[in-house]
Amino acid sequence: MALELQILGSNSAAFAHNRHHTSQLLRVQDKYFMIDCGEGTQLQVKRYKIKLSRINHILISHLHGDHYYGLMGLVSTLHLYGRTADLHIYGPPGLADIITLQLKYSATRLSYDIKFHEWVPETSSVIYEDDKLTITTIPLNHRIHCSGYLFKEKPKKRGINKLVVDKKLAPNQANALRNGEDIYNEDGTLLYKNSLATLPPKKPYSYAYCSDTKLIPQLVDVIRDVDLIYHEATFMDDMKDRAENTYHTTARQAAQLASEAHVGQLLLGHFSTRYRDLNPLLSEARSVFRESYLAEEGKRFVVNH
Amino acid sequence: MALELQILGSNSAAFAHNRHHTSQLLRVQDKYFMIDCGEGTQLQVKRYKIKLSRINHILISHLHGDHYYGLMGLVSTLHLYGRTADLHIYGPPGLADIITLQLKYSATRLSYDIKFHEWVPETSSVIYEDDKLTITTIPLNHRIHCSGYLFKEKPKKRGINKLVVDKKLAPNQANALRNGEDIYNEDGTLLYKNSLATLPPKKPYSYAYCSDTKLIPQLVDVIRDVDLIYHEATFMDDMKDRAENTYHTTARQAAQLASEAHVGQLLLGHFSTRYRDLNPLLSEARSVFRESYLAEEGKRFVVNH
Repeated sequence: MALELQILGSNSAAFAHNRHHTSQLLRVQDKYFMIDCGEGTQLQVKRYKIKLSRINHILISHLHGDHYYGLMGLVSTLHLYGRTADLHIYGPPGLADIITLQLKYSATRLSYDIKFHEWVPETSSVIYEDDKLTITTIPLNHRIHCSGYLFKEKPKKRGINKLVVDKKLAPNQANALRNGEDIYNEDGTLLYKNSLATLPPKKPYSYAYCSDTKLIPQLVDVIRDVDLIYHEATFMDDMKDRAENTYHTTARQAAQLASEAHVGQLLLGHFSTRYRDLNPLLSEARSVFRESYLAEEGKRFVVNH
Repeated sequence: MALELQILGSNSAAFAHNRHHTSQLLRVQDKYFMIDCGEGTQLQVKRYKIKLSRINHILISHLHGDHYYGLMGLVSTLHLYGRTADLHIYGPPGLADIITLQLKYSATRLSYDIKFHEWVPETSSVIYEDDKLTITTIPLNHRIHCSGYLFKEKPKKRGINKLVVDKKLAPNQANALRNGEDIYNEDGTLLYKNSLATLPPKKPYSYAYCSDTKLIPQLVDVIRDVDLIYHEATFMDDMKDRAENTYHTTARQAAQLASEAHVGQLLLGHFSTRYRDLNPLLSEARSVFRESYLAEEGKRFVVNH
């Protein structure tokens, strides 16, 4: 099953040019992850007809408003809808404080439980793991504690070559094959040799979310070969100094990083309000890395190799 | 100069039917007051081309999200715009805590100062006064501390009757006339007798904002004769019990209150998401009080008698 990313917003700072603040929805296999949640995200969720009940995990990169001011609204709406499933919220220290304080003053006892997972700043650690996927924090370099997130599917099992395997297998036999084992008949003779009866496992999907940050050249090792990376590109390269001073990145810098790391596709986002037309940022990035795209709201990016 | 109210949003609870959460902008003479500030209010401000720099006072009724989740976004945007003038924020205890905590975690030192004015719950008190206007809290009956706001112009000076006063007056003479005094010539003889040379003062304008609350019959004395009242009307009267249980009011109840208090106009708002079509609420109110209107977003109500 593919990895699919939908952009709900990608503008920085103030609202402008009908562009909303940062939020994304990532689907990996059957799970949905919301990444960042700027003000008005729940309006975007409505606009794009996303089922809120599907979202059990929300990851916040940092505590600048354009990345999380929509979170309390979403938390409240889920309560009004009568949600009962746990909601897992990942983010920097302080996020639980902020949410808890507002619930206290509104005297709200939510219809569901929030499970907070605050990460340790400046440290890369696995904050989510199930049998198919891990999410690891990517410490970024911003004015306040900020972390990206690396989504990586776990290595997949081998596929069964149906051109060779023409018999119906018991579940344990099929599993054994997918795990790389040979299969024997009851009398001990070889039924299927694994190397003949199976296909190599599919490549696991991966996605890296990197916003907000100044350029971190060492990131190339962290994101090497990922299928998809979202990297902030607040400015164009003629404003490199301003990017540096405000802890942001330029489109060219993001493209250079993507190129060096041999990623599949680069999505540019966190656009400065100074750019009404975003095509110059795209051109700048594409002159360095051809597989660059604008992470404009409403767009979907699918990885399916 | 007229009193003018613009509705930015008036839906309750969750977003629905393209209706936004509660926020209003009131102009009294040359001053602008924002009342409540639900999520996305700054988007509505943009939509209706309101100059943010004009707003120096924001009043919050209570700490349910649909009335204040847009405030942090507005505070941040004013900072990004480089505001320097003080911003006065009025509201229940806790509001300063909530804002201060979020500014702390975002490491933001605002370009301007916020002056917090937290009122004392369950107590009516003057929270704003200048030479022309007072704002008094109206304790309401909701699940958490909640207050309405009564805006009252101070008694106005007498007008000069230009049919009688045909001479150019010195400023102190004109002021004395407007204050009700007679005017004398230098030789001590009467120049203008006040009762002949002036007109009665114009009636001061008044506006009462009452949301959220269950019906408070005693409110009739507080809002008597106001020009304009916004009163929540979350439900229709067939849901009176539900209104009572959830500390809300019906359209009929609001209209009865307005009728008994002899107000000028009643604006209904805080509509439940169950009503896609609001006309039945309007009809219900008008059957009791003819001067009832729907406080739909984008609408302006002007008092100019």
